[in-house]
Amino acid sequence: MKPFMDENFLLQTSVAQDLYHHHAAKQPIIDYHCHLDPAQVAEDHRFRSITELWLGGDHYKWRAMRTNGIAERYITGDASDWEKFQAWAATVPFTLRNPLYHWTHLELKTAFGIGERLNPESARRIFDACNDRLQNDPSFSARGLMRRYHVETVCTTDDPVDDLKNHSAYAKEIVNAKSSNCPTTKMLPAWRPDKAMAVENPAAFRTYVERLGQAADVDIRNLDDFHKALQRRHDYFHAAGCRLSDHGLEEFYAEPCSPSEMNRIFNKVYDGATLTDQEVRQFKSEMLYFFAVQDHASGWVQQYHYGALRNNNCRMMRALGPDTGFDSIGDWHTACSMSRFLDRLDSEGHLTKTILYNLNPADNEMVATMLGNFQDGSVAGKIQWGSGWWFLDQKDGMERQMNALSLLGLLSRFVGMLTDSRSFLSYPRHEYFRRTLCNLLGNDIEQGLIPFTGYEEQRVLQMVEDISYNNAKQYF
Amino acid sequence: MKPFMDENFLLQTSVAQDLYHHHAAKQPIIDYHCHLDPAQVAEDHRFRSITELWLGGDHYKWRAMRTNGIAERYITGDASDWEKFQAWAATVPFTLRNPLYHWTHLELKTAFGIGERLNPESARRIFDACNDRLQNDPSFSARGLMRRYHVETVCTTDDPVDDLKNHSAYAKEIVNAKSSNCPTTKMLPAWRPDKAMAVENPAAFRTYVERLGQAADVDIRNLDDFHKALQRRHDYFHAAGCRLSDHGLEEFYAEPCSPSEMNRIFNKVYDGATLTDQEVRQFKSEMLYFFAVQDHASGWVQQYHYGALRNNNCRMMRALGPDTGFDSIGDWHTACSMSRFLDRLDSEGHLTKTILYNLNPADNEMVATMLGNFQDGSVAGKIQWGSGWWFLDQKDGMERQMNALSLLGLLSRFVGMLTDSRSFLSYPRHEYFRRTLCNLLGNDIEQGLIPFTGYEEQRVLQMVEDISYNNAKQYF
Amino acid sequence: MKPFMDENFLLQTSVAQDLYHHHAAKQPIIDYHCHLDPAQVAEDHRFRSITELWLGGDHYKWRAMRTNGIAERYITGDASDWEKFQAWAATVPFTLRNPLYHWTHLELKTAFGIGERLNPESARRIFDACNDRLQNDPSFSARGLMRRYHVETVCTTDDPVDDLKNHSAYAKEIVNAKSSNCPTTKMLPAWRPDKAMAVENPAAFRTYVERLGQAADVDIRNLDDFHKALQRRHDYFHAAGCRLSDHGLEEFYAEPCSPSEMNRIFNKVYDGATLTDQEVRQFKSEMLYFFAVQDHASGWVQQYHYGALRNNNCRMMRALGPDTGFDSIGDWHTACSMSRFLDRLDSEGHLTKTILYNLNPADNEMVATMLGNFQDGSVAGKIQWGSGWWFLDQKDGMERQMNALSLLGLLSRFVGMLTDSRSFLSYPRHEYFRRTLCNLLGNDIEQGLIPFTGYEEQRVLQMVEDISYNNAKQYF
Repeated sequence: MKPFMDENFLLQTSVAQDLYHHHAAKQPIIDYHCHLDPAQVAEDHRFRSITELWLGGDHYKWRAMRTNGIAERYITGDASDWEKFQAWAATVPFTLRNPLYHWTHLELKTAFGIGERLNPESARRIFDACNDRLQNDPSFSARGLMRRYHVETVCTTDDPVDDLKNHSAYAKEIVNAKSSNCPTTKMLPAWRPDKAMAVENPAAFRTYVERLGQAADVDIRNLDDFHKALQRRHDYFHAAGCRLSDHGLEEFYAEPCSPSEMNRIFNKVYDGATLTDQEVRQFKSEMLYFFAVQDHASGWVQQYHYGALRNNNCRMMRALGPDTGFDSIGDWHTACSMSRFLDRLDSEGHLTKTILYNLNPADNEMVATMLGNFQDGSVAGKIQWGSGWWFLDQKDGMERQMNALSLLGLLSRFVGMLTDSRSFLSYPRHEYFRRTLCNLLGNDIEQGLIPFTGYEEQRVLQMVEDISYNNAKQYF
Repeated sequence: MKPFMDENFLLQTSVAQDLYHHHAAKQPIIDYHCHLDPAQVAEDHRFRSITELWLGGDHYKWRAMRTNGIAERYITGDASDWEKFQAWAATVPFTLRNPLYHWTHLELKTAFGIGERLNPESARRIFDACNDRLQNDPSFSARGLMRRYHVETVCTTDDPVDDLKNHSAYAKEIVNAKSSNCPTTKMLPAWRPDKAMAVENPAAFRTYVERLGQAADVDIRNLDDFHKALQRRHDYFHAAGCRLSDHGLEEFYAEPCSPSEMNRIFNKVYDGATLTDQEVRQFKSEMLYFFAVQDHASGWVQQYHYGALRNNNCRMMRALGPDTGFDSIGDWHTACSMSRFLDRLDSEGHLTKTILYNLNPADNEMVATMLGNFQDGSVAGKIQWGSGWWFLDQKDGMERQMNALSLLGLLSRFVGMLTDSRSFLSYPRHEYFRRTLCNLLGNDIEQGLIPFTGYEEQRVLQMVEDISYNNAKQYF
Repeated sequence: MKPFMDENFLLQTSVAQDLYHHHAAKQPIIDYHCHLDPAQVAEDHRFRSITELWLGGDHYKWRAMRTNGIAERYITGDASDWEKFQAWAATVPFTLRNPLYHWTHLELKTAFGIGERLNPESARRIFDACNDRLQNDPSFSARGLMRRYHVETVCTTDDPVDDLKNHSAYAKEIVNAKSSNCPTTKMLPAWRPDKAMAVENPAAFRTYVERLGQAADVDIRNLDDFHKALQRRHDYFHAAGCRLSDHGLEEFYAEPCSPSEMNRIFNKVYDGATLTDQEVRQFKSEMLYFFAVQDHASGWVQQYHYGALRNNNCRMMRALGPDTGFDSIGDWHTACSMSRFLDRLDSEGHLTKTILYNLNPADNEMVATMLGNFQDGSVAGKIQWGSGWWFLDQKDGMERQMNALSLLGLLSRFVGMLTDSRSFLSYPRHEYFRRTLCNLLGNDIEQGLIPFTGYEEQRVLQMVEDISYNNAKQYF
């Protein structure tokens, strides 16, 4: 019986252990998509407690607690930090076989050096030990945590109306830091214009258009103004170092829509009228295309996260707002529209580097084979399939994604892992991913499915380093 | 090479063997959903032959025989018991790798103590040995078989018009039995009102409404009467100990429908007119909601089995009727309507404990994440994902369900196995399930993925006992 | 660490090794569905280079090269044979974990006896060695390669308008060869009338109708003429030994359509008008039915390959035409129409032996259970689920298909492997398939899930031989 989570955690063969310890573990981290708060980086935030750091915004843990019968007061309510931590510690032993169990202990170990398991008996000890560090050790600040995990670059997720002042303030600090030779994580914004497509709610859309007009200093009265404002903000993001966009979609949209129709639809929703379903789809189709053309013109990478069924619980949506643990996996069929959307871009010479993320693993093979339709030989791995996203961001989801990518595309060209997290403690997920990758390769080598001598041995070693770091470095 | 189906069948590690033999195997069985005939329990039915017991109604075996090229005469026709058994015995060796092969030999072994494999050479011997027991040993009666497998409680599946006389007669016997200290299985009815929603066939619906009116002693002329009759029957079931409903659905239904529309639709179909597809969906939406509100008011658990494509073969439907082996897995998309249906109940305070069963494993992750949207912290595991159903009721289906549940929810809170069977010989499926569960945990422990010392060792042992028995005991 | 691709490649247990080497490997090959060019067989084509043989038409390799950043000139352009081979050799080490890596080395080894790995260092050596054989050794002709792999029968894929002269010329040669005792592969045509259903493009359809009229010597002016011409060609194919049809579909079609409607739709499209989506579906429904009735009347086997999303890249479609590597997996829902289509045939007594192939593995369980609805006991395994197709034609795809078939049907009755390939070098895929099959059985036996003594041991051995060869022999 292998000890729980020892140094060879997830590594079943000695080849895998060697690949991980000598090749993967050494690579820095490029976290090219996450939801960290740029203000906390700019201010080098200090956490008052492990409760703030762990339970302040982690809806994965909230869902597990609700499932375990914990009352909302101890989750998002007015209970004390200790009470909430205690409720979480009581839940942890019930999360065996859930990735939360592994994340929790990897984070305790790699950040705090705590090897003990979290359960009701150890809760107080661990709570105190973590808080002591967070409150008294400056290396446990937001930036300190990123430094601890060798995070070279982090890309936040930002709305076109966001002012990016934290990014620029921090960028200035880095320049100075660099001159004094102090290693520091680079932080870049990423462009996420979901609200500029959200015409299903005319009132909220109108409000957003107004905020956008102010941010871009454009008086928006029609579609042209709207486009102009978005272009100004895109330029502003570009100037701030942004080279990456992201879109959260239910499905892909590729409905035909003439310029005059699009103008009409914009005016209609801008005037507060509710659009038909077909108009909503047409509007989204055209905006998705508009954004893709922008990204191509600026040489950015575009990302699409699709397939989440969000805000399923209206009662809790009213009480807590979005992103509080009431989202799940949808089951839309979108292969045809995804294909039409990408084909239009390719046909018109506007298809930039692209990463597709699906949430429903039933779509894995469909997406994995979609890539190949638009690989044009210009750049290796131009169209990418993103690593297991959200609910799939665990060993099984990663393995299924990497296996399907291997079988239906080229694993060697994969840009690898990202955290997609709101927490400064999520970086061990890169370790988790790399161990999983090395284990897959190790098993194949052990079984004689991959040659591991001479030229091919070097190729495998390079592949591990590439997927851990170099591919992303080169791609972005 | 491990011997075939020895005492450590399915148990690959010594930890798994220990978990199973010392923790899982000892638990009694709560079979909270099955299709046993209550009359056979009430009458303590004796079986004339293994053919009656095994082949009388088991459409799994019938399908395998048809696939194996056996003529219908030997399946559902007028061949003799021996001829039919012989045809089955000739098919058994062709079912290697199908769960039927394992069920067959587990049943022979645990009920009859027969370790020999069934094939054309052994057929006559096994036929005679089984029949001898069934005909001459009183412990091989319907009740005797349940006692043999330590079945504590069994919930049958009943129509609102059923009179439950067998349940009440048997319940009286149990009371008397208890006083004389003789252990006996408890039998409870479950409420399955599918026919009260089946408005796609107006004539059959009208006939059903009339039967319901008689059963409830209500003269049904409009929707209110219909509701009233269903409520009376619900009360009657409640009085008979029923605490559980079940619904067989193709998809979920959550179409808006005003009370006046619903009245109009009821009158239309009651008058014999064919409804539009949209009206059918609206009617089903409202009835599904009505039943859910009833169940919540009575504190029942509600179950939904969805996704079966039934009665695909019209020729055989005419010849043999439903449930004769001509059903298969559908591919509807129902995430949005499932979400809307559950959300409406939650928003209006009517969401009772719920178990969702999907038939298409491509929906596994969608369903597993749907649960979390409606876990409200009131009861641990309030919304459950049912164990692998029908075609998925085998090792692979169980493993995929338990793995997805582990990764996307809390396995620890799972209410576990049910037989869903028409046969008194299906109880070894609980053994099969428990072995599979212990094996999964054993593998994880062996690989260092689950800690197995101190507090966590106790947690794992408790978890095995909980999923085998305690969770169901507490939930229902 | 097992050496790469040794004699026990893919065979993890000694039982599996025995099953493969002593039972599977000895069987001849029946390749009942492929896309070989009958002219190359009739002419006994000699290949000028390994580039022609490997890279001349293999869009799997082309996709991998594009993904690896290779410019089109080196893929389908005017680069020299050596330049193209060099580009492929540079890509091969990046295909680790993709089936191409295994196919490539299995083909080098079994055809050319080359055990060396293909990479930039070995490229020139391997290029020269292969070309030397192809150019100088007569046994490396088209027919010679088939003989090398013990191909007993091969079924090509032909359009109703094709004249089959290559088939008849070759058939004559075989008769003569037989008399002189020289073993030769039998080549039969298969009927693939996709273009006779492709009414979505009226102009192309009209052109096709005219070609069909010429081929059948029928002056086609209405639907009856169209049917008559197709029947004449069907008879012609039958006379040429054809006993097998094939259809490439996105979805199944089973829309109601009266004879008069069908006549109207035919006239409309024949006159050059564009059909509505519904009319297209109705036309396809009726033609699909028409073809199925033909096949049943002639005692043929019918095959359906459904679910491919083809020609996604319009730019490359214009440049290179179809089947050039721009197809992927679709996500249609087709269970209901598949069921209605098969049920109509069964009800009316026209359901012949049928093989269903799905491209999206998310449909695996749906299809696997569909079979059972129409197994009628007349022939063992009458309705078959085709082996992993196209993107699924690799170890994982094969295992998933065989596992689902085992669990939901009878693996024992499976007709097994086909290449579906355009290359004379693809026959090692049968070896790959058989190794995979033996490995699955070996693992089960090793774990005590399958008995392997006495009667059952013989059954397993027979099953291996049956799935490798006998089942197909008997089925076709």
